[in-house]
Amino acid sequence: MKTKRRILAGAVPEAPPGTYSNAIAVGRTIYVAGQHAGEPDGTIVGEHDVHAQATRALEKIQALLAAAGATMDDVVKLGVFLTDVTTRAQVGEARRAFFSGDFPCSTLVGISALAQPGLLVEIDAIAVRGASGTKAKT
Amino acid sequence: MKTKRRILAGAVPEAPPGTYSNAIAVGRTIYVAGQHAGEPDGTIVGEHDVHAQATRALEKIQALLAAAGATMDDVVKLGVFLTDVTTRAQVGEARRAFFSGDFPCSTLVGISALAQPGLLVEIDAIAVRGASGTKAKT
Amino acid sequence: MKTKRRILAGAVPEAPPGTYSNAIAVGRTIYVAGQHAGEPDGTIVGEHDVHAQATRALEKIQALLAAAGATMDDVVKLGVFLTDVTTRAQVGEARRAFFSGDFPCSTLVGISALAQPGLLVEIDAIAVRGASGTKAKT
Repeated sequence: MKTKRRILAGAVPEAPPGTYSNAIAVGRTIYVAGQHAGEPDGTIVGEHDVHAQATRALEKIQALLAAAGATMDDVVKLGVFLTDVTTRAQVGEARRAFFSGDFPCSTLVGISALAQPGLLVEIDAIAVRGASGTKAKT
Repeated sequence: MKTKRRILAGAVPEAPPGTYSNAIAVGRTIYVAGQHAGEPDGTIVGEHDVHAQATRALEKIQALLAAAGATMDDVVKLGVFLTDVTTRAQVGEARRAFFSGDFPCSTLVGISALAQPGLLVEIDAIAVRGASGTKAKT
Repeated sequence: MKTKRRILAGAVPEAPPGTYSNAIAVGRTIYVAGQHAGEPDGTIVGEHDVHAQATRALEKIQALLAAAGATMDDVVKLGVFLTDVTTRAQVGEARRAFFSGDFPCSTLVGISALAQPGLLVEIDAIAVRGASGTKAKT
């Protein structure tokens, strides 16, 4: 029996077939692919602005989780990949707007490049639906 | 009661004792260590050829999952680490040969170095046995 | 019902509220945030000494797991992020002191920077309480 479920959120563009899924749920656990501020037409939301890019990445994660019946407070682990690690305070500031209560675990590292030039931050997530005791708005 | 199970695949060389395991299963979830094209004798399958190296890494993941009773379509999350992120299309091409249906989530970043000089790509995975509804060939 | 549980260990300083948690458990699975040798006052345990820094990071992971009722042998996956990948043998040496039996899976990559200058290694972990069949000392 298939228990793997691809999560689609209207507001989050899916990558072309044969590449990757934005989010996959198995049971209550939801894996969210690394999200960033790149749009399908090649533009970037918030060029040169890591706060805006982190916000956009987190908005995508939030929309994907909502589509899976989960909330940001259900996130247990974030991976944060920065092209310039000295901007991490701005990313932290963006992150604060999305979580409440016990924040998720996080691994934050400075990497040499992201998938597309101009991207400053990529964020992935693991969430467990319902784990925070809050309910997703539907 | 011990529920952690080390997964051994004849075709995939294990690292020396006291270092790491290639794959560990707990229940239906299988964690696969970062795989690459390095061989125990220090040679690399596909030197200067990221497509060949990604293929080799994915073959190892496939063999480890098969040994755990799972298939590539049971993979829910891939981590892809590239020394040169501009080669990602070639890695995507290699990846296409291994998956069908809903592709796994993926986080792809450019990093400054892998464990051994000459390695161009390392890929790790989380899979859930049976999640795709397909059965591993035995 | 809330099933997400923040794990606090007296010996491991928590980050300020509104940033991240050191460890979150849901059911038997424990996610541990990237740990390093930085202390809250900005000092680093083992400056210029990657073995000492890895040891400090692993001590923190061990303390967090103990607080969650788990042991290092319950770890299924490690992520190891090094600013200089050529130091990996020293990190492997440090790691050997913390695990027994089947070592965890590991993904080890060289990254361009960690959260704080002077940090040489960051390590995160996923563990499953009781999976090794050993019991945490209480």
